[in-house]
Amino acid sequence: MQCGIFHTPYNRPTRTPRQMLDWSMKLAVVCDEAGYADFMIGEHYTLAWENIPCPEIVIGACAPITKRIRFAPMAHLLPYHNPATLAIQVGWLSQILEGRYFLGVAPGGHHTDAILHGFDGIGDLQAQMFEALDLMEKVWARKRFRQKTEHFQAGFPGEEDMIFFPVELANNGPWKGRENLEIAVTGLSKNSSTLKWAGERDYSPISFFGGFEVMRSHWDTWAAAAGPKGFKLDRKRFRVTRDIFIADTDAEAKRLALQSGLADAWRHYLVPIYHKFKLFDGIIADSGKNVSPDQVDMDFLAEHFWLCGSPSTVTRKLERMYEQTGGFGQVVPNSHDNIDNPKPYFESLQRLASEVVPKVG
Amino acid sequence: MQCGIFHTPYNRPTRTPRQMLDWSMKLAVVCDEAGYADFMIGEHYTLAWENIPCPEIVIGACAPITKRIRFAPMAHLLPYHNPATLAIQVGWLSQILEGRYFLGVAPGGHHTDAILHGFDGIGDLQAQMFEALDLMEKVWARKRFRQKTEHFQAGFPGEEDMIFFPVELANNGPWKGRENLEIAVTGLSKNSSTLKWAGERDYSPISFFGGFEVMRSHWDTWAAAAGPKGFKLDRKRFRVTRDIFIADTDAEAKRLALQSGLADAWRHYLVPIYHKFKLFDGIIADSGKNVSPDQVDMDFLAEHFWLCGSPSTVTRKLERMYEQTGGFGQVVPNSHDNIDNPKPYFESLQRLASEVVPKVG
Repeated sequence: MQCGIFHTPYNRPTRTPRQMLDWSMKLAVVCDEAGYADFMIGEHYTLAWENIPCPEIVIGACAPITKRIRFAPMAHLLPYHNPATLAIQVGWLSQILEGRYFLGVAPGGHHTDAILHGFDGIGDLQAQMFEALDLMEKVWARKRFRQKTEHFQAGFPGEEDMIFFPVELANNGPWKGRENLEIAVTGLSKNSSTLKWAGERDYSPISFFGGFEVMRSHWDTWAAAAGPKGFKLDRKRFRVTRDIFIADTDAEAKRLALQSGLADAWRHYLVPIYHKFKLFDGIIADSGKNVSPDQVDMDFLAEHFWLCGSPSTVTRKLERMYEQTGGFGQVVPNSHDNIDNPKPYFESLQRLASEVVPKVG
Repeated sequence: MQCGIFHTPYNRPTRTPRQMLDWSMKLAVVCDEAGYADFMIGEHYTLAWENIPCPEIVIGACAPITKRIRFAPMAHLLPYHNPATLAIQVGWLSQILEGRYFLGVAPGGHHTDAILHGFDGIGDLQAQMFEALDLMEKVWARKRFRQKTEHFQAGFPGEEDMIFFPVELANNGPWKGRENLEIAVTGLSKNSSTLKWAGERDYSPISFFGGFEVMRSHWDTWAAAAGPKGFKLDRKRFRVTRDIFIADTDAEAKRLALQSGLADAWRHYLVPIYHKFKLFDGIIADSGKNVSPDQVDMDFLAEHFWLCGSPSTVTRKLERMYEQTGGFGQVVPNSHDNIDNPKPYFESLQRLASEVVPKVG
């Protein structure tokens, strides 16, 4: 099994963009040196608690200071981009990373981001994502075309377009060709229609963890779409996000976690969201406890939801998850804002890679 | 007077994107330490000789390694971007640079870039630039709105949009507010309609140098539009690009220039373009020589067009230009690909800042 990291990021709203860039670069170096396989960065425009609107800028800044870790925007929200511009950006950036790059795509899930882009809400965005990616694939094919779709347009110049004035074309396609560009898609809800679409096109599935049952459905939905197309149903391609804190002992891990950015993000930001969208049900079911969502507190989260504890406790929790869900290839801790006290957090990340993950799966 | 640098870039087409990022970062550090005021980076998608499609990624990577120099995309080609996404990117990046940022905008001047974006050619792009920037200004105003224009749409969420689920909004507006964001526009042709538009809106003028007469017309066009609106007609805001090479003696400067990326770019790329678009006329007129465009060779360029020579020769040439054009605030050498032999080039850049520019104006 591998580990990756998901840098949504859950930052305290007081952080400046410059603090976020510096923190992101520091985190990328720590994860790179600890042997993490992937570093995924969210894209949100309006959310004070998840404020990186341009993951590509963070990725570019991290390219020269890291060696092995791969980066991905997770995800570029396709309805909010010009597809030709984005296709070239993806290809060029994958070349800057010399292949240490993959691409996450999503329709956009936040109401305020949709309004910023002139939409009523997030209802109509999925079809635009499909439309945009079709055009991006054509740009990557580097064959002459021109097409207007319902919401977008794109093209690619060919010999016939050089009559006016011939220019040498840059090759800003994906590193070593489109066939070497991994595309990945995140599923949140059960039977995610986005994951069905991903399976049909051989894009890798990522489960935004919401309990064992939802996670099983993510793989099953993806595999049911990918299988009939003849794509390889390899669970090594299946990534899953979790919240994780590791220290010497269970008590110490819990104490440090409750002082950390992880707990702050839950206290001030995630708990209200989980109530609003009824996301606690799966978590409570997995715990085997007879509690209502209103009874979920920090103590419950640390004991029953976060993978929190000593290396052996977290190994045991991760093994249970592996057994309950049929397996996966990469566990992906969500990043949290530990700018003011990075040491216990970095140690936790390092121990996940060195003491836990090698023992699971 | 100040100096800036224009990193179009004129790279040899064999360079990889990673080489270009590394070279750009090195160049930014050299210019920053030499006291350059501004570092401007082009945006082109399809041109092998000008291959940076995402100036914002280069700017982000340079932010942590520079101290005083300001960066600008020069220019973001507005018809090729989602205006809301770009408005947020500009604001967020200006905050990452903590104010060391300004914004160049342009309609897009290259046929193959237009085709990539699904257009027939570059004919219709100016109106879309105006349309996009109007929406970007509204996003920066951070007041609730929603608008569909002919080609774009954008909005901004307000209190009324929080009924569904309240979120704390990120402030990704320009550093210290819109009034502190300089916008600049490059003029190429005589009586540039883009510079007229820039003057009407108080955006700074940049002259892409094409001889004294064109340069005078750039300022006059801009000032004729800006004056009646009551904007300050300060020539310190007027930047002009040039090709420059400085060494100990005139002979040494010419010898080094003719071996450098500057000469390579002209030999293999710019001379055909200047012939095609009849750009040599103004240059020949300024030289006072009785030659036809066909007779323009590397020797002519080094003697009569490039500001090439010892520090005192280049000072004299720059003073003549200052007198002939009515003055300007910043001389901006075009960058050239000297990856294989950076030392004479970096010394030339340093001497421009330390030995020439302080004596002019």
